[in-house]
Formats: sequence, structure tokens, C-alpha cells
Amino acid sequence: MEELNTLIQSIKALDAGAMDAARQRQAQLAKPPGSLGRLEDLSVQLAGITGKVHNEIRKKHLLVFAGDNGVVEENVSSAPQSVTLMQTVNLTRAKTGASVLAKYTNCGITVCDVGVNADIREPAVLNRKIAYGTQNFTKGPAMTRQQALTAIMTGADLARSTQADVLGVGEMGIGNTTTSSAVLSVLLGADVETVTGRGGGITDQSFVNKKNAIRKGIALNQPKAEDVVDVLSKVGGFDIAAMCGAFLGAAASRRAVVIDGFISAVAALCAVRLCPLVQGYLIPSHASYEIGYQLAMDAMKLQPLFLLGMRLGEGSGCPLAFQVLESACAVLNHMATFDQAGIDDGYLEEIRQGDKFTVEGKA
Amino acid sequence: MEELNTLIQSIKALDAGAMDAARQRQAQLAKPPGSLGRLEDLSVQLAGITGKVHNEIRKKHLLVFAGDNGVVEENVSSAPQSVTLMQTVNLTRAKTGASVLAKYTNCGITVCDVGVNADIREPAVLNRKIAYGTQNFTKGPAMTRQQALTAIMTGADLARSTQADVLGVGEMGIGNTTTSSAVLSVLLGADVETVTGRGGGITDQSFVNKKNAIRKGIALNQPKAEDVVDVLSKVGGFDIAAMCGAFLGAAASRRAVVIDGFISAVAALCAVRLCPLVQGYLIPSHASYEIGYQLAMDAMKLQPLFLLGMRLGEGSGCPLAFQVLESACAVLNHMATFDQAGIDDGYLEEIRQGDKFTVEGKA
Repeated sequence: MEELNTLIQSIKALDAGAMDAARQRQAQLAKPPGSLGRLEDLSVQLAGITGKVHNEIRKKHLLVFAGDNGVVEENVSSAPQSVTLMQTVNLTRAKTGASVLAKYTNCGITVCDVGVNADIREPAVLNRKIAYGTQNFTKGPAMTRQQALTAIMTGADLARSTQADVLGVGEMGIGNTTTSSAVLSVLLGADVETVTGRGGGITDQSFVNKKNAIRKGIALNQPKAEDVVDVLSKVGGFDIAAMCGAFLGAAASRRAVVIDGFISAVAALCAVRLCPLVQGYLIPSHASYEIGYQLAMDAMKLQPLFLLGMRLGEGSGCPLAFQVLESACAVLNHMATFDQAGIDDGYLEEIRQGDKFTVEGKA
Repeated sequence: MEELNTLIQSIKALDAGAMDAARQRQAQLAKPPGSLGRLEDLSVQLAGITGKVHNEIRKKHLLVFAGDNGVVEENVSSAPQSVTLMQTVNLTRAKTGASVLAKYTNCGITVCDVGVNADIREPAVLNRKIAYGTQNFTKGPAMTRQQALTAIMTGADLARSTQADVLGVGEMGIGNTTTSSAVLSVLLGADVETVTGRGGGITDQSFVNKKNAIRKGIALNQPKAEDVVDVLSKVGGFDIAAMCGAFLGAAASRRAVVIDGFISAVAALCAVRLCPLVQGYLIPSHASYEIGYQLAMDAMKLQPLFLLGMRLGEGSGCPLAFQVLESACAVLNHMATFDQAGIDDGYLEEIRQGDKFTVEGKA
């Protein structure tokens, strides 16, 4: 816990001076004020994160945390547990959705095993296994408090040591929409019904099983909403805990960090609950189809950038968001200011006066 | 009109066989069915457009049509008319929002003057000038019917002759949210109040002027909603008419074509009204902040891909949408199928059975 407290204390607020300077730069660019909307906001946020007005996204990197969940014994998922292992390996081979998107958008990827229920002999998977899956939380806590702390610090250490201008956080773990819904239900004090969806797509019976398992897990383990580590250890998963740590680590190292879908959003919310300053470092990506996503985002006062109806996970939304960030940087760095927009070709001299957009109303 | 009819008749329906084959390919990919949402839909649409299951976006190109509007005499805009000329030239120099975004996303751009109220001596601007701006539509029709037809065919010819895998359609023209709102009001039979926003950002007085000008223009010229060319000629602009033609031309040459914001959406709606088959070729980009945008999109049964609060125009949303299309292609082309996702390393043999996602419910 001391290590986590040190990490949390190392997270600083955004640089207000750099943000003001970025806002001033945006106001000088030859366009109606605010007309590039969130591209402008993102450029200001990046300035606050890095402390520099002009930023560039040279290296983008996706961190994917993989782990298994004991609760799958309750028949809450459409896929067998072995899919976690299969797709964890496939993520390193550009065969899965997120890894294909990463490869073809020039984005690095690290796949980290924090709890897959198998020995993984693929050396491209980073071995940080804490256990062979969590325990079934309908029968007791998913993990010990120490294991939760280890998972958080594992994610934080990986994030802090990954050289990139921006990070994204994804996951692979059969059963992890169940654990995410459980964590979200506790954190928000929300009814299980309102935060639980069908994940990868499940039968009506599995959907009933899923909600029953979550209710049972919460009733049995009594996680304390105000103690995020307690919640993660009792009804969470190794992946979510490590992802929570990755968001903390990204913020501690002053890098923007992209939220993928539902599970990633719940992990980000855990990080924000541990340290509210993390909020300033978060970049949303797509609006997950999963029901609890918007509630988690609302709790962080964030809105998605994309409406793509995606619900794959793995970090698949992050590469797209990285591209939007690159565009936000390009606008601030390369658009002409009003002074530069005047054309020096002579024949336009007569109209150079009064060429600024004179906006008096509000948009 | 004969030329336009020939163009319209050259537009074919999407290739249903290729779309079915693309859907089958998506169903074989190792992911829960539909979990990549609109990335899957876009890959199917592209197959229908090109007739090939596997597509690649090698060349992306933005077409920007520039023209002035006589209605600016009515004090409907925040910027002086000379800004059209200035930004038309700046678009060729990667100084404006859209041209910066195009440059830094490796997207070509052609800036075409169809009606700027000045002689443009910058050779990078393609000269297809029809007139030095339209007439003030509060005093008579904006242009002749022949001029509207010429503008449409100019856009269509430029689209058909531009070598690229996907096209985007943008504009530059002070006063063109006024003309777009007028056209949309007539096409949808919608009250001026519901389709008119503040464009680049105008004063309360200019906003009143704008709505009054539109009402006056419609009352005076009596455009016939069922005759798109009549509507464009009476209350439209050279830019919107040429953009309408560009959408038709892209569809005629079986290329996907991206809608930017409000003005682009109104032009696309004009194209769809002239030829409903165009709808299948349209790719939305961002949700414009401008009030009429969603009405135009609803009329075409389209939903935006991005929520970026943008309202710059110029085609600034297109480069971002091109990147989403590239990602859609990457997924279909490079993700492993269920057969390929099994890992042949031996140690996983025991779990290869039953590794498919067995989805029986609905998402």
C-alpha cells in the first residue's frame, strides 16, 4: 500500500500555464473560434499533460493486460476460458482485432499476462503472472488484497517504463465484463441491472447467471465502495487491477492515456477514485456498446470521440483515438495564424485589412 | 439536363454478392459476431461499392469547392467575403484546418474555384469558375438553371477524374451555411428556424438577418422541392451544386465518398434526391455542431462516426473518416479467422476443441 501511495502522490495536476498558452495559440489560428471543437480541446489537454504547447505523437503504444476470472465457473460467458490464452498469444501476432488495428496504424503493443490460467510459452507475452486466474467471487474474494496491490503496481510499472508519447489500455480475459460490471456496481452504488450487459454476446440463461453471480459476489464479499483496492480484490480481476495501475502510471509519467471500451473505462474510474488528478490525463475513444460504459464515463465526466458500435475490447478503440490525437497536434502545430493567413502575393494586399473573422456572437 | 441524366443513369446499386461475401468473411473472423460494429459495416459497404471483398485505401483525396454567395449582402455572416478568396488560396498551401489535416494524414487535396468573387492567380487552385459569386437570392434566383447544371457537372467531372480509392467533399465559401439552410429547408419542407444555425459564429443580429434572408429567398423564388436543380439554382450556391455533383460522380465511378459537415451533408442529400442509389456510396464523418446537420443525415438514414464538436467545414472531417475506413479494411484483410486463430504450437492442442465463440444470444 505504501508503494501505491507513493505512486499516487507522484501524480501532478495538469500544467495550467501550458494549457493557457495552447488556448491562446488556438485563438490565433485562422478559423472561427472553437470551430475545430474537440481537436482544440485535445491540443489544450496535451499541453497540460506535457507542459509544452507544441506536442507531437511520435510513438503510440497499446498495453494489453490478460487474465482469467474464476467467476466463469458460473456460466456467465459465451466463450470457453481457453480463449483468453489463445487470444493473448494471438495479440502478439497481429491476428486479433486490436493487434491488427495497432499494426496498421503504426502503434506498438505490449501484451502482459497478469493472470492467465495457463503457462504461456510465447516469449512475446510479457510474463507478470500473479496467479492462474482469480478465484470465483461467488464463493469468496477474487484475490487477496496483496494480489490486487501487486496487479496495480504491475500495470503502473509497465506504463511508466514504456517509452511512448501516448499510451492506450486494453485487456483480454474471458469473464471480464462480469467483473467490470461488479466493480462498477459497487463504485457507483448502482443496481446490477443497470451496469450489466451481454459482453461478447451471451444466451438469455447466461445473462441471468451473470447478473446473479454479480449480486451474489457483492452480497457475499461486501466490498467497500470507498476502498478501490478492496473492491478490485473482492469482485475485480487481475486485468482490471493492472489496467487501473496503468492509468495511474501513465499519469505519473505525464503521458496522455486512452480508454478503450467498458472494461477499460471501469479500470480508469478505479484510477480516478484512487487519484482524481488522473482524470486530466484520460483520453476517451469509442462509445462501447456495453450498457455500463456510459455510466462509467459519466462518472469521469468524459464523452467518447467515436460512435462505432464496437464491443470487442482488447484495446481496439485506442489506435483510432491515437489518430485523432495526432490530428489535434497537427492543427495546433501547423495551421496558419491570422497574421500568417494573409497572402503576401501582392494582389491580395487590398483585402488584407479586415480579413480576420470578427466573431461577436457565440456559437 | 441530358448530361446530368446520363450521369445519374450511370450510377449502379451496390454489389450485393460482394457484400454477402464480406459479411461471411466478417463472420469467420475470430471475434464475437458484430463486435467491431461499424468497422464491420464499413468493410461490407466498401465491398458493395468496389465489388471486391478485400479493399485497401491506398489513395485518399479531398475535393474542396470554393464559391461566393451574393446573399452575404444581407449581413448574414461573421466574416467578410474576402475570406473566401484568402482561405481558398490557403487551402492549397496546407495553412487551413482541413488542408493541415489532409497533409498530416497523407491525403491529397484539390481546391476548385467554381465561383469565388475574385480572379485567383494561384495556379494550385483549379479554375472552374462559373461566375464571380452568385446573385443575392433575396432579390432573385442565386443563379440560372444552366449555371446550376454546369456546377453539378463540374463537381461530377472532377470527382470522376480524380484518381483515388476514396474521396471526401468539402467547401469554402462565406455565407454558405445560409445557402445550405435554405436548400435544406426547401428539400425537407422544414421550418427555417429548425435548420438554421450560427455557422462560423455570428451576432444575434446577423442570426436574425440570416433567417430573414432565407425566408425571403424562399418566398420570393418559390423553389420546387421535388426539383433539386431548381432548388440549388434559386437558393443554393455554386459550391453546394458542385459538391452535389461530386457525390454523384464518386458514386458513378464506384468510389466511397465521405461527407464532411453541414454543407457537405446538404449537398449529399441533394445528390441522394437526384439519385437514391448514391446513398450506398456515402460515408459519414463527424457530427457537425450546426443545427441542420442531423436533419440532413436523418433524411439519408446516416449516423456520424465522430463526436468532435467541429464546425469548420472545408472538408476537415474527411481525413479522420478516411483513417476509420483504412482501419475497417485492415480488420477484414488481416484479422485471423477462427480456423487461423488456433495456435499451432503444440502445447495448445488440448484446448483447440471448442475454442470458437459460441454465441447463441443476441448482443
